[in-house]
Amino acid sequence: MKCKISHVNFSFNQEGAIFMGAKRSNEDCKIGLFGVPFDGTTSFRPGTRFGPSAIREASYGLETFCPQLEADLENINFLDLGALEIPHGAPEPVISLVKEATSDLILRKLKPLILGGEHSISSGAVASIATNFPDLILIQLDAHADLRSEWQGNQHSHACAMRRCLDVLPSRKIFQVAIRSGTAEEFQEIKKNNWLVNHHRGHPAFELEKVLNPHKGKPIYLTVDLDWFDPSVMPGTGTPEPGGFFWEDFRSITDVLKKHKIVGADIVELSPQLDSSGISSIIAAKATRSLLMLLNMEN
Amino acid sequence: MKCKISHVNFSFNQEGAIFMGAKRSNEDCKIGLFGVPFDGTTSFRPGTRFGPSAIREASYGLETFCPQLEADLENINFLDLGALEIPHGAPEPVISLVKEATSDLILRKLKPLILGGEHSISSGAVASIATNFPDLILIQLDAHADLRSEWQGNQHSHACAMRRCLDVLPSRKIFQVAIRSGTAEEFQEIKKNNWLVNHHRGHPAFELEKVLNPHKGKPIYLTVDLDWFDPSVMPGTGTPEPGGFFWEDFRSITDVLKKHKIVGADIVELSPQLDSSGISSIIAAKATRSLLMLLNMEN
Amino acid sequence: MKCKISHVNFSFNQEGAIFMGAKRSNEDCKIGLFGVPFDGTTSFRPGTRFGPSAIREASYGLETFCPQLEADLENINFLDLGALEIPHGAPEPVISLVKEATSDLILRKLKPLILGGEHSISSGAVASIATNFPDLILIQLDAHADLRSEWQGNQHSHACAMRRCLDVLPSRKIFQVAIRSGTAEEFQEIKKNNWLVNHHRGHPAFELEKVLNPHKGKPIYLTVDLDWFDPSVMPGTGTPEPGGFFWEDFRSITDVLKKHKIVGADIVELSPQLDSSGISSIIAAKATRSLLMLLNMEN
Amino acid sequence: MKCKISHVNFSFNQEGAIFMGAKRSNEDCKIGLFGVPFDGTTSFRPGTRFGPSAIREASYGLETFCPQLEADLENINFLDLGALEIPHGAPEPVISLVKEATSDLILRKLKPLILGGEHSISSGAVASIATNFPDLILIQLDAHADLRSEWQGNQHSHACAMRRCLDVLPSRKIFQVAIRSGTAEEFQEIKKNNWLVNHHRGHPAFELEKVLNPHKGKPIYLTVDLDWFDPSVMPGTGTPEPGGFFWEDFRSITDVLKKHKIVGADIVELSPQLDSSGISSIIAAKATRSLLMLLNMEN
Amino acid sequence: MKCKISHVNFSFNQEGAIFMGAKRSNEDCKIGLFGVPFDGTTSFRPGTRFGPSAIREASYGLETFCPQLEADLENINFLDLGALEIPHGAPEPVISLVKEATSDLILRKLKPLILGGEHSISSGAVASIATNFPDLILIQLDAHADLRSEWQGNQHSHACAMRRCLDVLPSRKIFQVAIRSGTAEEFQEIKKNNWLVNHHRGHPAFELEKVLNPHKGKPIYLTVDLDWFDPSVMPGTGTPEPGGFFWEDFRSITDVLKKHKIVGADIVELSPQLDSSGISSIIAAKATRSLLMLLNMEN
Amino acid sequence: MKCKISHVNFSFNQEGAIFMGAKRSNEDCKIGLFGVPFDGTTSFRPGTRFGPSAIREASYGLETFCPQLEADLENINFLDLGALEIPHGAPEPVISLVKEATSDLILRKLKPLILGGEHSISSGAVASIATNFPDLILIQLDAHADLRSEWQGNQHSHACAMRRCLDVLPSRKIFQVAIRSGTAEEFQEIKKNNWLVNHHRGHPAFELEKVLNPHKGKPIYLTVDLDWFDPSVMPGTGTPEPGGFFWEDFRSITDVLKKHKIVGADIVELSPQLDSSGISSIIAAKATRSLLMLLNMEN
Repeated sequence: MKCKISHVNFSFNQEGAIFMGAKRSNEDCKIGLFGVPFDGTTSFRPGTRFGPSAIREASYGLETFCPQLEADLENINFLDLGALEIPHGAPEPVISLVKEATSDLILRKLKPLILGGEHSISSGAVASIATNFPDLILIQLDAHADLRSEWQGNQHSHACAMRRCLDVLPSRKIFQVAIRSGTAEEFQEIKKNNWLVNHHRGHPAFELEKVLNPHKGKPIYLTVDLDWFDPSVMPGTGTPEPGGFFWEDFRSITDVLKKHKIVGADIVELSPQLDSSGISSIIAAKATRSLLMLLNMEN
Repeated sequence: MKCKISHVNFSFNQEGAIFMGAKRSNEDCKIGLFGVPFDGTTSFRPGTRFGPSAIREASYGLETFCPQLEADLENINFLDLGALEIPHGAPEPVISLVKEATSDLILRKLKPLILGGEHSISSGAVASIATNFPDLILIQLDAHADLRSEWQGNQHSHACAMRRCLDVLPSRKIFQVAIRSGTAEEFQEIKKNNWLVNHHRGHPAFELEKVLNPHKGKPIYLTVDLDWFDPSVMPGTGTPEPGGFFWEDFRSITDVLKKHKIVGADIVELSPQLDSSGISSIIAAKATRSLLMLLNMEN
Repeated sequence: MKCKISHVNFSFNQEGAIFMGAKRSNEDCKIGLFGVPFDGTTSFRPGTRFGPSAIREASYGLETFCPQLEADLENINFLDLGALEIPHGAPEPVISLVKEATSDLILRKLKPLILGGEHSISSGAVASIATNFPDLILIQLDAHADLRSEWQGNQHSHACAMRRCLDVLPSRKIFQVAIRSGTAEEFQEIKKNNWLVNHHRGHPAFELEKVLNPHKGKPIYLTVDLDWFDPSVMPGTGTPEPGGFFWEDFRSITDVLKKHKIVGADIVELSPQLDSSGISSIIAAKATRSLLMLLNMEN
Repeated sequence: MKCKISHVNFSFNQEGAIFMGAKRSNEDCKIGLFGVPFDGTTSFRPGTRFGPSAIREASYGLETFCPQLEADLENINFLDLGALEIPHGAPEPVISLVKEATSDLILRKLKPLILGGEHSISSGAVASIATNFPDLILIQLDAHADLRSEWQGNQHSHACAMRRCLDVLPSRKIFQVAIRSGTAEEFQEIKKNNWLVNHHRGHPAFELEKVLNPHKGKPIYLTVDLDWFDPSVMPGTGTPEPGGFFWEDFRSITDVLKKHKIVGADIVELSPQLDSSGISSIIAAKATRSLLMLLNMEN
Repeated sequence: MKCKISHVNFSFNQEGAIFMGAKRSNEDCKIGLFGVPFDGTTSFRPGTRFGPSAIREASYGLETFCPQLEADLENINFLDLGALEIPHGAPEPVISLVKEATSDLILRKLKPLILGGEHSISSGAVASIATNFPDLILIQLDAHADLRSEWQGNQHSHACAMRRCLDVLPSRKIFQVAIRSGTAEEFQEIKKNNWLVNHHRGHPAFELEKVLNPHKGKPIYLTVDLDWFDPSVMPGTGTPEPGGFFWEDFRSITDVLKKHKIVGADIVELSPQLDSSGISSIIAAKATRSLLMLLNMEN
Repeated sequence: MKCKISHVNFSFNQEGAIFMGAKRSNEDCKIGLFGVPFDGTTSFRPGTRFGPSAIREASYGLETFCPQLEADLENINFLDLGALEIPHGAPEPVISLVKEATSDLILRKLKPLILGGEHSISSGAVASIATNFPDLILIQLDAHADLRSEWQGNQHSHACAMRRCLDVLPSRKIFQVAIRSGTAEEFQEIKKNNWLVNHHRGHPAFELEKVLNPHKGKPIYLTVDLDWFDPSVMPGTGTPEPGGFFWEDFRSITDVLKKHKIVGADIVELSPQLDSSGISSIIAAKATRSLLMLLNMEN
């Protein structure tokens, strides 16, 4: 089953289930969800290409209702487009396809929600959205700074994901929530630019609320690298970093963000084969459920 | 090796080890522990039938002494009866056998401690105990409300476990400790009936202590669905739900319960094959050790 | 996405990929493939409910062309209907639904190909087809005789699968290909009735060709319990039995069967979670590809 | 539950199930089965200590009837004594305990069948039996010669298992069935002494029959190192060696041995944790079933 | 620890053990072994980047002596250079580096033996060697034809590996040993060109001997895609194809090749994370041991 | 590749990668790191012998820079010596070798950092260091008291590790940080001697700071049994004990210790095969990075 939106192809044939509660045709939908099963530059442990279908399958272990956000997926019109058709190997053509697909969705009044795949795909989405929203702000949940200019001879490695996003972000406004790993140089730059949103007594939402306050109403793109979570709750990712965050921390961040205007989001770096228990896919699916609810809110 | 107590059969032939420190004959025992290896209605990921033997095997990785409850299994007389012999398939005959077995134990002055298996077996035990203790109170540790009337065409699905317990509970007194997943309808009913024991700043024991206070001396049945724990400490369960609890939370709940009169308990939904590391079985075994100590206290 | 054919419901929402090369609408199709994700009576190690989607996903690791049967899936019109919607628990309602679904397919001129799920589902399909083809012959590839009248208190256990098929097979004509495990009583009955197709020097196809020869042109239902294969090539099944067969043996059996008239088939007992390497799903997918080609042949 | 036979202790508390069909008391038994959960000298991948309980648990996936040997465990009186209680660490005290336990069994007219644990335990059993049967012949199924005098500073390493058996074997009569790995020196010694039983066209039973013929009626001890099997059917062992044997090969060897007088046997080197699918434990259990039947034959 | 040979860098810092018996300095060595941990174009299941270090680690579970080839690694001087330093992502720069590294080795009189990594790397080695040996013959052990011109938009995908080798092979002389999977078009081309070396009654060495006979003395490059083996003995590869070969088959092929002049070789597509038992790495290490012995023979 | 420092042998041939950023020659190094791959007395689940190489491999998933300690491994001169060559089996010769190796390092002005292996190896290091620093203080991070005099007939079992350290510690000054498992007798002794450093509201660093204050400047040996961490962050250990600590707790302890004089350390009981996700190895590698930084500080 192929689904073609003008320039790019999506496919469900090889992909797994559709996300719990999703539609498969466009009528009245506000959100368009698609997967980008790409992991070509991953340096440590590959496998994020299986992320999108694992998230969809795991979604059926959850309820459609969220008692915290008091919303129900059954009341949200969103479209699951399946997998973006991509070549494996070099990242550049993949990032271009992500940019095209995102632009197509925006044209059709669909807010994009992208399931990765590795982090390098984000810059395609940011490039597209920033064309439409020049004052776009980027919020990054991540363990790693991802600000390298180049990594292992590749400018589009997942270790350069945020550097590439900054390249296409006119506002150069980025909030890096509680980054905990990077080179000495990366931390110097972060400090100099005040990009780091610190966690106050292990709780990263307090300061996020404060720094976002002056920007109410501005368009926000949220990129969630799942290794932001602690390895104990998210073992299924390529470069787990001890000292991460738990579901309650993510929950409190969504409590902050529900007062803001999210215009697009991605959730990346799930590598389900690394976690035989499947809990990583389930927390990723629950986070995706939250993102769908955030994208659906009228702010 | 078969063990027959009037109406029902127990067997150790195919089951694993006996629980650390248990007796195999009835003399002077106060507690009777048995397994119900049933998972016929599990909707997401089966395998809880292997729970009882996994708990027993894991118990040998622990000490018999608990520094928190200041008790030692070596000073507790409890009987391990092995596995209840059951047919696989439909839940109704299994629930009946659990009811019979529980009644037999009570007749022999043994407080029942049941190792599941899936949650649907609880209503058999509750039905039997409530006959003897009409003012029985039910305390539920669980991630899910389990209050559906029917699920996938089955009234005795594990998703209906608490609904079926309420059917046979004369007092209709249930405390649901920090339930975090359910349908919109389930949460409405819980709210209307004041069944939810909230967690205060992530700590579910504070409010439990308060709501239990007026009921001191009343008989309590405690059902522990292991998915109450966070998936990071209990990956080995069929429907893990992010945002759960840790050992310290369980510990503080036992500190509350040790002042109350527990007359029976079960610990269900361990699915050991889903957790290749084995940590789920070990926390289940440690919780079982606590339950044995709670059941042994004279309140 | 639901697909309703008069009496029964099929669904793709929660199920995985569609089988490589399949259609999703009925035009010009000769074969209808559907999954029955049921494992309620499995006595040893459950998990066959995940079999159908694992077969579909693994199919994408194969080519559409088979150099031995010289056929290509791209030239075969077959419909993938998704998963039959079933209740978990008791087997009787599931077997009834399989019977209904099979009858619907036959009505629509679709030869049924069923992906299990446990072996107990076969009797539903046989019952339906035998109504249309009273001289139906049953060929069973299996490690186990499956002729028990009852097992663990259940007449529809997977250990009784062939007994229940015989109950609804007017011809009582069954060929059990190289069964290698059973009780003393089962082997006596098999011997008395000449049901066993021996393997000649480890090669089960020689004698099958001989015994099938007199029946050329008669309708055949083929049930493939994947534990017929050796545990080394099919570790992902609930009751693996050492001393089984390899791909070359299956290949030679398809060489025999391609001269006969197959009117329906099933392939059951894949339990993918038991095989972390995934080779079980791939051999099951390749065998399914062969079955599609056999069902497509005009004999 | 402890079981004491004069000098040594056996225990079932921590051990798993008893072997399918076994007795737990001595009346009328001819065979005594016990486990030795020791893996202290294993040089590559440890874990054989879990072998005995894995074999017992896996036995319940099999039938009691063997259609090839036409025997049924239900007609064989054999005793399962549980696990020999041993210290971990150095091998010498463990080998002494195995010797004592074996002698006790012989005193009670029980033929010993030992479940390992690592191969170094065999010399304890051989030492005891050779005292009673000075013309004892040793038959070794193994991938490795195991004839080193010392390995990594240890004379009782599993790599020295057969060297230590020869030390205590008065007849110095050993048949090494199709050994396929060793040092240049080991192969020279094997050749010089004519110890190797070659496999004829991949079939190791032909020559075994020939070389055993002159010894009909002599007492035989059979030691089965499970790595004799091909890694594909026995992945769960510490030093798998490609190019091994399949169930049919083992079956043909039992066809030879059933005409001879087996007075004791062991089956060693199962390391179940290395094989998540469990097929290694099942083939080990089926081989153990064969050994029980061989030991029960009156030759 | 870095090792630089003129143009390219090798590293052992992050790589695992050195291959059993290898040297780390060049004196008197005839063979140079290095790893290429690249899996950027793998379409189904990635992870071959971990192949080289898994082969090295597994080598320590083997003996240095091979009783079949009657050779001992202790008598062979070969150099283990570690891992070629490569960028992840696109294949072209990696193939160039492989070509450079191979040329450097040849310059230093070292026959190259390359551990993959995915199959696309072979064309780099073939390109270099064919420059030095214009009459080079290519022998391919593989499950798949790998003759596609392009796959998923990539001309250097692993599915195009042999097409790219043919591009740089002046003799256009290739022997594809018992290929068992491909498109209808690939099989037509193979047939037209007489490239397929059939297996005679399951035994692929008979015909290989015949077709190689006229070419005695000509330089041969041997590329071993490990998925040539049956999935049961080699589950750890990305696209396992049922119906493959066993160790005895490989052994008989080495018996043929030892009479020929092998000037270079690679062994690719081991994906160790897909096989938790580790048997795939061990058979790969044993095959590598054979390749070292073949490369060492003076023909 | 062997590395010999006077009395003892180290080897890298079979061991994995070197630790990220390490040197392989002695010039200007202050710290010497080596592995002791021994697990001969482990009573529950073996496999710690694979700990050292797993820590090294996992180190490459981290950065060399630590934002908390504001240090960079690239600025620290430390030597990775590889694996100490040991015999498997009894612990006594291994402990002697550890003692010798430690003494050699001290002689060469290298502070020892030992990667286990099981906990029993610590007493060898303590014995050597206490000879040089008679006022040596021992700090133990551990789940278990490890104060048994004997366990399963073995005085050097890992369950006796601290008892054996006390035997060779002249000061008899030990701080046991937040031990949470032991026998009733062990807890009595700990209480009597004031050895336990309690955790204050779940936070073990508060009290450690207080009790260490009077000892500023005194030499400290730090032994980290990784089961001190919670099983959710460290599933890969033989006897996980629920209710443990998280990375933030370890971090706060290093904040205390950086003001003290650490003269040696070990990190033991990682059993990587028990954790297929690999997060245990990564937290162990990150903790090792911290220990290297602590050992490098001039206090």
